[in-house]
Amino acid sequence: MEEFFKGIPKIKYEGKDSKNPLAFKYYNPDEKVGNKTMKEHLRFSIAFWHTFTGTGIDPFGMATMEREWNKYSGMDLAKARIDAAFEFADKLGAEYFCFHDRDIAPEGDNLKETNKNLDVIVSYIKERMKDSNLKLLWGTANLFSNPRFVHGAATSCNAEVFAYAGAQVKKALEVTKELGGENYVFWGGREGYETLLNTNMELELDNLARLLSMAVDYAKEIGFDGQFLIEPKPKEPTKHQYDFDVATVYGFLKKYGLEKYFKCNIEANHATLAGHSFQHELYTARINDMLGSVDANQGDLFLGWDTDQFPTDIYVTTLSMYEILKNGGLHRGGLNFDSKVRRGSFEPSDLFYSHVAGMDAFARGLKVAHKLLEDKVLENVIEERYKSFNEGIGKMIVEGKVGLKELEDYALNMKPIKNVSGRQEMLESILNQYIIEA
Amino acid sequence: MEEFFKGIPKIKYEGKDSKNPLAFKYYNPDEKVGNKTMKEHLRFSIAFWHTFTGTGIDPFGMATMEREWNKYSGMDLAKARIDAAFEFADKLGAEYFCFHDRDIAPEGDNLKETNKNLDVIVSYIKERMKDSNLKLLWGTANLFSNPRFVHGAATSCNAEVFAYAGAQVKKALEVTKELGGENYVFWGGREGYETLLNTNMELELDNLARLLSMAVDYAKEIGFDGQFLIEPKPKEPTKHQYDFDVATVYGFLKKYGLEKYFKCNIEANHATLAGHSFQHELYTARINDMLGSVDANQGDLFLGWDTDQFPTDIYVTTLSMYEILKNGGLHRGGLNFDSKVRRGSFEPSDLFYSHVAGMDAFARGLKVAHKLLEDKVLENVIEERYKSFNEGIGKMIVEGKVGLKELEDYALNMKPIKNVSGRQEMLESILNQYIIEA
Amino acid sequence: MEEFFKGIPKIKYEGKDSKNPLAFKYYNPDEKVGNKTMKEHLRFSIAFWHTFTGTGIDPFGMATMEREWNKYSGMDLAKARIDAAFEFADKLGAEYFCFHDRDIAPEGDNLKETNKNLDVIVSYIKERMKDSNLKLLWGTANLFSNPRFVHGAATSCNAEVFAYAGAQVKKALEVTKELGGENYVFWGGREGYETLLNTNMELELDNLARLLSMAVDYAKEIGFDGQFLIEPKPKEPTKHQYDFDVATVYGFLKKYGLEKYFKCNIEANHATLAGHSFQHELYTARINDMLGSVDANQGDLFLGWDTDQFPTDIYVTTLSMYEILKNGGLHRGGLNFDSKVRRGSFEPSDLFYSHVAGMDAFARGLKVAHKLLEDKVLENVIEERYKSFNEGIGKMIVEGKVGLKELEDYALNMKPIKNVSGRQEMLESILNQYIIEA
Amino acid sequence: MEEFFKGIPKIKYEGKDSKNPLAFKYYNPDEKVGNKTMKEHLRFSIAFWHTFTGTGIDPFGMATMEREWNKYSGMDLAKARIDAAFEFADKLGAEYFCFHDRDIAPEGDNLKETNKNLDVIVSYIKERMKDSNLKLLWGTANLFSNPRFVHGAATSCNAEVFAYAGAQVKKALEVTKELGGENYVFWGGREGYETLLNTNMELELDNLARLLSMAVDYAKEIGFDGQFLIEPKPKEPTKHQYDFDVATVYGFLKKYGLEKYFKCNIEANHATLAGHSFQHELYTARINDMLGSVDANQGDLFLGWDTDQFPTDIYVTTLSMYEILKNGGLHRGGLNFDSKVRRGSFEPSDLFYSHVAGMDAFARGLKVAHKLLEDKVLENVIEERYKSFNEGIGKMIVEGKVGLKELEDYALNMKPIKNVSGRQEMLESILNQYIIEA
Ligand SMILES: [Co+2]
Ligand SMILES: [Co+2]
Ligand SMILES: [Co+2]
Ligand SMILES: [Co+2]
Ligand SMILES: [Co+2]
Ligand SMILES: [Co+2]
Ligand SMILES: [Co+2]
Ligand SMILES: [Co+2]
Repeated sequence: MEEFFKGIPKIKYEGKDSKNPLAFKYYNPDEKVGNKTMKEHLRFSIAFWHTFTGTGIDPFGMATMEREWNKYSGMDLAKARIDAAFEFADKLGAEYFCFHDRDIAPEGDNLKETNKNLDVIVSYIKERMKDSNLKLLWGTANLFSNPRFVHGAATSCNAEVFAYAGAQVKKALEVTKELGGENYVFWGGREGYETLLNTNMELELDNLARLLSMAVDYAKEIGFDGQFLIEPKPKEPTKHQYDFDVATVYGFLKKYGLEKYFKCNIEANHATLAGHSFQHELYTARINDMLGSVDANQGDLFLGWDTDQFPTDIYVTTLSMYEILKNGGLHRGGLNFDSKVRRGSFEPSDLFYSHVAGMDAFARGLKVAHKLLEDKVLENVIEERYKSFNEGIGKMIVEGKVGLKELEDYALNMKPIKNVSGRQEMLESILNQYIIEA
Repeated sequence: MEEFFKGIPKIKYEGKDSKNPLAFKYYNPDEKVGNKTMKEHLRFSIAFWHTFTGTGIDPFGMATMEREWNKYSGMDLAKARIDAAFEFADKLGAEYFCFHDRDIAPEGDNLKETNKNLDVIVSYIKERMKDSNLKLLWGTANLFSNPRFVHGAATSCNAEVFAYAGAQVKKALEVTKELGGENYVFWGGREGYETLLNTNMELELDNLARLLSMAVDYAKEIGFDGQFLIEPKPKEPTKHQYDFDVATVYGFLKKYGLEKYFKCNIEANHATLAGHSFQHELYTARINDMLGSVDANQGDLFLGWDTDQFPTDIYVTTLSMYEILKNGGLHRGGLNFDSKVRRGSFEPSDLFYSHVAGMDAFARGLKVAHKLLEDKVLENVIEERYKSFNEGIGKMIVEGKVGLKELEDYALNMKPIKNVSGRQEMLESILNQYIIEA
Repeated sequence: MEEFFKGIPKIKYEGKDSKNPLAFKYYNPDEKVGNKTMKEHLRFSIAFWHTFTGTGIDPFGMATMEREWNKYSGMDLAKARIDAAFEFADKLGAEYFCFHDRDIAPEGDNLKETNKNLDVIVSYIKERMKDSNLKLLWGTANLFSNPRFVHGAATSCNAEVFAYAGAQVKKALEVTKELGGENYVFWGGREGYETLLNTNMELELDNLARLLSMAVDYAKEIGFDGQFLIEPKPKEPTKHQYDFDVATVYGFLKKYGLEKYFKCNIEANHATLAGHSFQHELYTARINDMLGSVDANQGDLFLGWDTDQFPTDIYVTTLSMYEILKNGGLHRGGLNFDSKVRRGSFEPSDLFYSHVAGMDAFARGLKVAHKLLEDKVLENVIEERYKSFNEGIGKMIVEGKVGLKELEDYALNMKPIKNVSGRQEMLESILNQYIIEA
Repeated sequence: MEEFFKGIPKIKYEGKDSKNPLAFKYYNPDEKVGNKTMKEHLRFSIAFWHTFTGTGIDPFGMATMEREWNKYSGMDLAKARIDAAFEFADKLGAEYFCFHDRDIAPEGDNLKETNKNLDVIVSYIKERMKDSNLKLLWGTANLFSNPRFVHGAATSCNAEVFAYAGAQVKKALEVTKELGGENYVFWGGREGYETLLNTNMELELDNLARLLSMAVDYAKEIGFDGQFLIEPKPKEPTKHQYDFDVATVYGFLKKYGLEKYFKCNIEANHATLAGHSFQHELYTARINDMLGSVDANQGDLFLGWDTDQFPTDIYVTTLSMYEILKNGGLHRGGLNFDSKVRRGSFEPSDLFYSHVAGMDAFARGLKVAHKLLEDKVLENVIEERYKSFNEGIGKMIVEGKVGLKELEDYALNMKPIKNVSGRQEMLESILNQYIIEA
C-alpha cells in the first residue's frame, strides 16, 4: 500500500510537557475518565470531505492544498483517497470516519454509472475495513453541490430533482448499512430559500418532511437500524435554511410526526451562525432527547460565514463535553471533525497538527467537565438555586396542583420577595480555575 | 378635559402631494382596498408604554421627553396619561391601544394595593371608552421590570416569583376582559437565561408551559375568549430568551400540547434580532396558523439591540402586508406600534409625526401588496415554478404514492434534469416598480 | 462576430408602465437631470469578472451559469469573453467596463508567458474599442486568487511574492494606460491576516505602503495619469483586512504620506460588512476628498459574507446618489456593477434582467436625490439645525477665537439650554414621499 | 469611618488550589513576573461609575443593586460613595480608580453650583487620599447623560451645548490635575449621529477636533502633564460614533494634527462591537504609539450591545497582556475595570467576586503571555516566517532600493514560488498548552 503521509509516525500521547507537535499532550486514549476511557467518551471521527477532498478553494482563491493523492484522477484518485484515509486514521488513532456519497466516488455520466462507481469504492472500503479499526460513524448523500440542486433537493421547485434526491438517499442508505454505519445524516445545504419572492415555503417544508418519511420507511424495509440525524444550520449556502437550529428542527419534526425517528447532529459553527452558543444547542437537544452526534469544529465569532475551524477553544470543548456527559455520552454518535485546515495550512502535516489540536482540546475539555461534575460544582449551585420548587408552593406548581387563583391567594399573603444573586462572575472564575487546574 | 397636545389638530388625509407633516399622504382610513377599507385592514394600535410612559432614557442617558402630563404624579399622573391617550388616539384616528398592567397604574406598597390602583384606572378607562372609539387590542402583564423578576418570572429560580407572576397574570386577564380586550399577550422579557452555568433550562421551560396552561384554564373559567398570543424575541434583556422566534415558539407549544390556544404577536425588530426578515416570521406563522397580531416597528440592521423604531421602510411594510393579506387579514389582531420616538425626537409633536410616518408607510405597503396580489405577480411566478408537483411524479410525491424505490426507478430512467432560473433580480425590479407606481 | 446573447435586443427605455423585463422603466440615458444627462451622472460600468468569468460556484456547490462562450477554452475563451462583453455592453447601453488582469487572459506557464497572453488580449480589446463606445473605467491586478498569494501579496511573509505582485502591478498599470483606463484600483483581498499568532502586522502594513509608493512612482514614469483608488473591505477572504473601511484607509494613507495620490473605490457590500451604511462610507470619503468611484452592489444584512447582489434597494441608491451629487459627481469614477447574478439566476437573460434592475434602481435614486437637493429638503433642515454656529459663541468656536476659559465664562452665564427635536421620523416620512413621488 | 462592606476581609492571594471565592488564585501582587511585580504590570483600577453608582437598571428593568450607601442622598450619598470606594480599593488591593465628574458629585441647579459640589467632593477625596494608597488613573467629563447632550456635546448642532461641554472639560481637567490623575480620557458617547438625514458630519468632526485642541491648550496652560486619551467606540448610545475604532481615531488625529497629544484608552467590548478582536485594537495602537490605557472588560459576542462584563476569558487576557508586554507595559495607563456586575449579581459581595475574577484572569494572562515571550514561542515563528525580508530582494524592498521595474526583472527570472504553511492550528494548540501549563 502506498504511503501518503511519509515521515509522519503514529501519534502518541506524550503528556502535557511535550513540545512535539506530532504528539498528544492531553488525549490519552486508554486513560480512564470516570468509568470509560477517553477513547470511549470521545469517539473521534474524521470528515472525509474536508480532509481527503478539501482543496483550499475559497470564494476569492484557488486550491492550495498539497496532497500526494492529487497525482491520480478518476477512480484511481477515489481509491487513493480511501487509502490515505485509512493510513491517516491509523496514524492518528481515530476510530471513525464520515462521508457524503460524492466524497468517496465520482459521479458518472448518469445515475446508473454513478451508483456503479459508488459500489466499487464501497467494496474497496469494506475490504480495507477488514484489517483496520476504522468504522463508519455516519454516511450521507450530497444533495447540494451538483447544479441540479440549485433550487434545493427535497425542497426544489422541480419534482424531478426531488425524485433524483430520493434515489440518491436510497443508495446512500444502502451504502451506509453495507459499511456498518451507525447513523445516517441529513444536512439540508440547499433546503431553504434565496428569496421569498419566488418561494412556496409551505410546499417546500411539506416536501422536506415527505423525503424524511420515505427514508424512515426505506430504512425499516432494508433493516438499517442506525440513528437518523438532522444537522441544523441557519444559512449558507442559502439565504435561509429550513433546519435553522435545534429548536426549529424539533418543531418541524413534531409538526410532521417524525420526532421519534430523528435526533440532531449538532455542529458548533452552525450553532453560532444561528446566534446560539454550542452549549445552548447541545443542551436544547439533550432535554428533548435529540442529542445524537456532534460535528466538532468552531467558527470565528467575528466572521459571518461557516469557517469550520478545528476546535481549539477549551471553554467550548469543556462546556460541550459537560452537556455530553450529562447526556450519558454520545451513544451511537461521535465527535466528527467537520473541520478544515485553514487555506494557509496547506501542508500534509497540518492535517495531523490540526487534528491533534482538536483532539487535545476535547480531551482537556472532557477532563475539566468530568471534574466539574464529579465535584458537583455547578450541580450544587443549581440544586440550591431552584430548591424552592421542591417544597411548598413551588412543589405544588411543579405538580400541577395550583392554578392562578391559588397563586393569587398565595401572593397576596406573601412577605416581600427576597431573591439571591445568580453569581455569574464567581462561577466564571471557578470555571477558569478548573480549566487550568483540572 | 385637559388638552395635552395643544395646537395639534385632527390628522387628516391630504394625499400624496401634501407638504403638511401633520397630514396623511397615503393613509386614507375609509378608502377601499379590495373589499375592506384601509382602517379595517390595518387596525392600527397605539402602544401605551412607548407613547405615554416612555422617557427617552437609554443606557447612557437620562430622560429627554417633553410631556405635559409629567407635571402630575402618582394616580393623577396615571389618569392624565389615560386622558392623553384618548386625546392622542382621537386626533390620530387610531382605534386601538395596548398596555401592560404597570403602564397604566403604579404599583402600591403590596400586591393588594397595586391591584386596587389598577382597578381605579381600569374603571376610569372604561368610563372614557363610553364616548370614544378607542378599543383595547390587547392587555398584558409586565413581568420583567420589577427587581423581583431579576431571574425571570415563570422561569425564575424562585417559586415565590412564579406565584407572584401568576397572580399578576390573573389580574391582567381580568382587566383585559373587563375592557373588552381582543387578545392577551405574553412577552417573556426575562424568561431566558444570563448564563447556563447557573441555569436549569429544563425546569424553566416546563414552568413556563405551566404558567401558560394556568392562564388558558383561568381564561376559560372567567369566560375570556380573546386570543392568547406569544411574542417571540431572541435576546435582550436576557442573553437568551426562550421564545426565540416563531419556529421555536411553535415547537415549544407542540411539546406542551398548547398549540391550539396560542398564536404569535410578531414584532419586526424581534424578527431581525433573531436573524430573520419580518416577512419570514410572518410567513412561518401564517402557514402554521399562528399569525395572530403584529408589533409594527423596525430595527436598525446595523445595531444589535431592540431599537423599536417607527416602521418607515416600504419594502418591509409591503412584504409584511403581503403576508397579512395572504392570511386573510389580521382577524382579531392589529398593527400595534411597539415603536418609540428616537431619544432626539423629544417634542410632543414628534409623537404625531412618527405615528403618521408609520401609518403612511403601512398604508402604502397595503396598497402595493394588494396590487401585487391583484395582478398575481408573484402568485403566477410561483404557480409556474412549482407546477411539476401538479402532475406525474410530482403529484405522486405530494400524494404520498411513491417511496424511495419508486423514485430511484424514476430517476434511473429520467432525462438529464433541466432547471429554470429563479429570476430573483427580475422580481426585485418588478417589486420596485410596484412600490413606486402602485 | 459571433452573437452570444441571441434573442436579446438592445435594451430601451420604455418608461414606468412598461411590463417588459428587457426594457428600462427609469433609466433614460439622455434624459436631463439637472444640467447633466442620466448617462453622464451615472457612468455605469460592467464588472468583467462577475459577468463574463463568473461561474456560480459557491463554497458548497459547483458552477451553474449557462454561458455560450464556455464551449471555448484557453485564449479562444478569453477572446470569446471579450466579444461577449462588447456585445453585452452595446445591448445594455453601458459605456464602461472594469477588469482584473487575470479575468481577461489566462496565466501561462510563467510570468513571461502570462504577460504575453495579456498583451494578445489587450491588443484585441484595443481593436474592438475602435468601433465601440465601450471605455475602460479601471484596471487592476488580481493579487489574491493564485495560491502564491495565500499569505498575501504586498503583505506576504515571502519577499518573492511581494516581488511577483510588484511585477504584476507594473504590467497591469501599463495595460490600463494602454486601454485608456481612467482609474487604477487596489483591492487587497489577501492583504490582511488569518491569525495574529503568526503575523507581523507592522511590517506588513509598511510593505503595503511600499507597494503603493512604487505604483505611484511608476505611474509618473510612464505618464499614466489615471486616478489611483483603494477599495476598502473589512474581511473575507481574510479574517481581517488592512483596508477595513474608508476611515482606516484615510489614516493609513496619512501615515505613509500617500493621501494625495489615492481616493477610494467604495463598494456598498464592503461598507455594510464593516458595520457602516453605504451612505456613511461615501459621506466620509466625500468630506475627505476621497470619493473616487463606486462598486455598485448590495449585501444582504442578514448574511455575514460578501453577496455582491445587484443593487435594487431604492433607499440605498437614493442616499448614495445624494452623496455623489453633493460630491459634484463621480468625476473620473463611475458606478461599476461589482454584482453577480444569484447562483439560481443562471440563464444568460438574467445578466440583462439584473443589470436593468440595478440601472433602474440607480436612475430612480438619482432622480429622487436630485429632487431632494433641488427642493433643499435636507439642506434646509441642516442649515436651520446648525445655525447657532453662524453667530455669537458658535461663530467664535468655529473661528477658533475662544478656548476653554472663554467657554466656561459663557456657560456660567448662559440661560438653561433649549434643544430642538432632530425630527428623524418626520424626515424618514418625507424621504418616503420623495421616493414614491419624485 | 462607616464600613460599607461588612464581613468582607482584605482579599489575599491563596493560590491555585484555594476554594475561597474571596481570595486570589492567580493574582499575587508582589510576585515578580520578569523584572516587575504583578502589581506593577497590571496597575488595576476601579471604575467609579459601575461599582459605586451602578444600579442594575437596564432598558427593560429597574434597579436591582443592593448597596449600603443608598440610604443616603445628595452630597451625603456622594461622600458615602467615596468612602465605599476607599474601603473597597483597600480590601481588594487595587491602587487606582477612575471617574467621570458627574459620578462623584451631583449636578446643582446651575453650572456654578455643580462646580461647587464637585469641589467639595474633590477636597474630600484629596483628604482621603492622604492615608490611602489609592491613586487616580484618569478623570473625565460626562458629556453624554444629561439631556442637554441629546444631540452630542462637542458635536452638538447647538453651539451653547459645545460651550457647556467646554466648560465641563475645563473643570474636569482641573479636578484631574488636583487629584494627581495620570491621564485624562475623552469618550464621545454622544459624538456621532442618529441619522445622516439631519446631520452635518463635516462640521461635527471639525468641532470635535476643536474641543480637543482647546483641551490640549488648556492643559498646557495649567501645567497638567497627564496623558490625553481617546476611547474609541463604534456605536451605542448613538447609531454611529465618530471614534469608531483605533484606526479611525488615528486618522482623525492625523487629519487635525493632534496625533502627538493623544493616545487611546482601548476597551475590549468596544473593540468587539467594532468587529475587531481586543488584541487587534491593542496591536494597532501599539505599532502607532497609541496604546495608552485599557478599559478591561469583555463583551458577549452573541449580543450586539455593550455588556461591559468582567473579563474572564483567559485567551483574551493572555493575548492582550501579550500586546501590553510588547508595548513595554502600560506606562502611565492601567487596567481599568470598566465592567459591571450582571444585573442578577446584585449583592455587595458580587462586587468582590467579580473583581477577583477579573484580576485573576489578567494575572493568569500576564503569566502566560510572559512565558510565551520568554520562550519566544511566537517571536521565533514570526522571525522565521518573515526572514526573506532580511536579505536579497526582500531587504531591498524594505530599504526602498527597488521599484516596480526591478521587481519585474526579478520576478521574470524567479523560480516558482514556494510558500510555507502558516501553521495556525499548531499555534493555537501551543497557546492552549501555555494557558494550561504556564
Ligand atoms: Co457539519
Ligand atoms: Co460548518
Ligand atoms: Co413588541
Ligand atoms: Co422590540
Ligand atoms: Co468591489
Ligand atoms: Co464585494
Ligand atoms: Co470604557
Ligand atoms: Co463598554
